[in-house]
Amino acid sequence: MKREKGLLIVLSGPSGVGKGTVCGALREHDTHIRYSVSATTRAPREGEEEGVNYFYKSKDEFQRMIQDGELLEYAQYVDNFYGTPREYVEKMIHEGHDVILEIEVQGALQVKKTFPEGVFIFLMPPNLNELRNRIEGRGTESRELIDNRMNVAREEIDLMDQYDYVVENDKVDFAVERIKSIVTAENCRKDRLIHLYKELVKE
Amino acid sequence: MKREKGLLIVLSGPSGVGKGTVCGALREHDTHIRYSVSATTRAPREGEEEGVNYFYKSKDEFQRMIQDGELLEYAQYVDNFYGTPREYVEKMIHEGHDVILEIEVQGALQVKKTFPEGVFIFLMPPNLNELRNRIEGRGTESRELIDNRMNVAREEIDLMDQYDYVVENDKVDFAVERIKSIVTAENCRKDRLIHLYKELVKE
Repeated sequence: MKREKGLLIVLSGPSGVGKGTVCGALREHDTHIRYSVSATTRAPREGEEEGVNYFYKSKDEFQRMIQDGELLEYAQYVDNFYGTPREYVEKMIHEGHDVILEIEVQGALQVKKTFPEGVFIFLMPPNLNELRNRIEGRGTESRELIDNRMNVAREEIDLMDQYDYVVENDKVDFAVERIKSIVTAENCRKDRLIHLYKELVKE
Repeated sequence: MKREKGLLIVLSGPSGVGKGTVCGALREHDTHIRYSVSATTRAPREGEEEGVNYFYKSKDEFQRMIQDGELLEYAQYVDNFYGTPREYVEKMIHEGHDVILEIEVQGALQVKKTFPEGVFIFLMPPNLNELRNRIEGRGTESRELIDNRMNVAREEIDLMDQYDYVVENDKVDFAVERIKSIVTAENCRKDRLIHLYKELVKE
C-alpha cells in the first residue's frame, strides 16, 4: 500500500485496565510499530539509557519545552515532570513508522488537543460489559454501592466519547489483534491516501 | 466485544480490479461474514437456488420493488434487471452479521445514498501505484497514450473520493487481510459502540 507518513496511535483507558500488558504484547507481535520515548526530569536509574528509556532533562529545560510547545502532553508526579516530546514522534512518523503512545486518560486528552490527527483508542475494562449484570445482579448490594459503580461507569463512558475506537481487553491476545487491525485499517483510510493519488496525477 | 448490529461492507472498484477474486478468497478465510444475495428478473439456470444464487423476480415484481424503495441499488443489463434487496441485508445485519456486497462502482454509489452507514471500500488496481513511473517512464510513450492514462487515473481517483477506505489489490492475500482488518476496526469504532455503553448505565 502507498503511504507517506506513519500514524500516532494513542492507547489509553482507565487505570488498571492493562494498557502496559497489552502494549508489551503488541510489541512482541509486531516489530513495525515504534514506541514513543518520554522526557523526564527524574535522574536516570542504573542501566537506563538516554533516548531508549527516557530523554533526561533538567527542570529548566523541561519548562522551556513546555513553553515552546515541544511536548504533546506532560504531567507532574511528586517532584518530577514527565512528558511526550513532539519532535521524536514527528520524526518517526515522517520516516513512515506508526508510533504508539501508551498513556493515562488525562494525558491522552491533552494529546487530542496538540495532535488531533492521532488515532485514539480507549482500552475498555472487560467488566463494564458485565456491568448491568453485576449492578442488578444478586439484588443484595447496597444502594450506595450500586450508585458508586454507576458513577464510575458513567465517568468512563464520558471519556470514551473523546476517542475514535473502543477496544475491550477481554483477553490480551484479542485486544492486540483488534489494535493491529485498527492500525492496518487506519492506514487504508481514504482521507489519509487520496492526496497521494491526487499528487500522482497532478500535471 | 459488545455489538448490537452487523455492518454492511461495500466492496467495489474499477472493473478488472479483481473484486470477485478477493471476495472469493475472503469467503474462504472468514465464515463470519455473510454475502448479499441479489434479486434478478432473469430465469434461474440449472442448479441455481432461490435465495442462494439469487432471489428470482418477475419484471412486474422487480418494478414494484424499485418503486417501493426495497432495493439498495439496481441496474439493467440487456433485458434483465439485477438489484440488492434491502430486506435481506437488514435482516442479516440485525441478527449481528457483517454483510459484504461486491458490486460495480455505479451500484456502490447508489448504495452510498440508500445506506450511508455502510463501510465503503475501494479496491485499487496495483498499477496506479506505478502510475508515475509508467507515465514518466522511458519517455518513449506518445502524448496521446500519456493523456489517456492520466484521464483514467483521474476518473478512478474522483470515484475513490466517495469511499471510506482504499485497499490496494497488490496481492489477493494482502487485500483480504486489509479488508478483514477494516471490518474488525469498524466494529471497534466508538461511534458504533458508545450508545450501547450509554444504555448500560442509563437508570
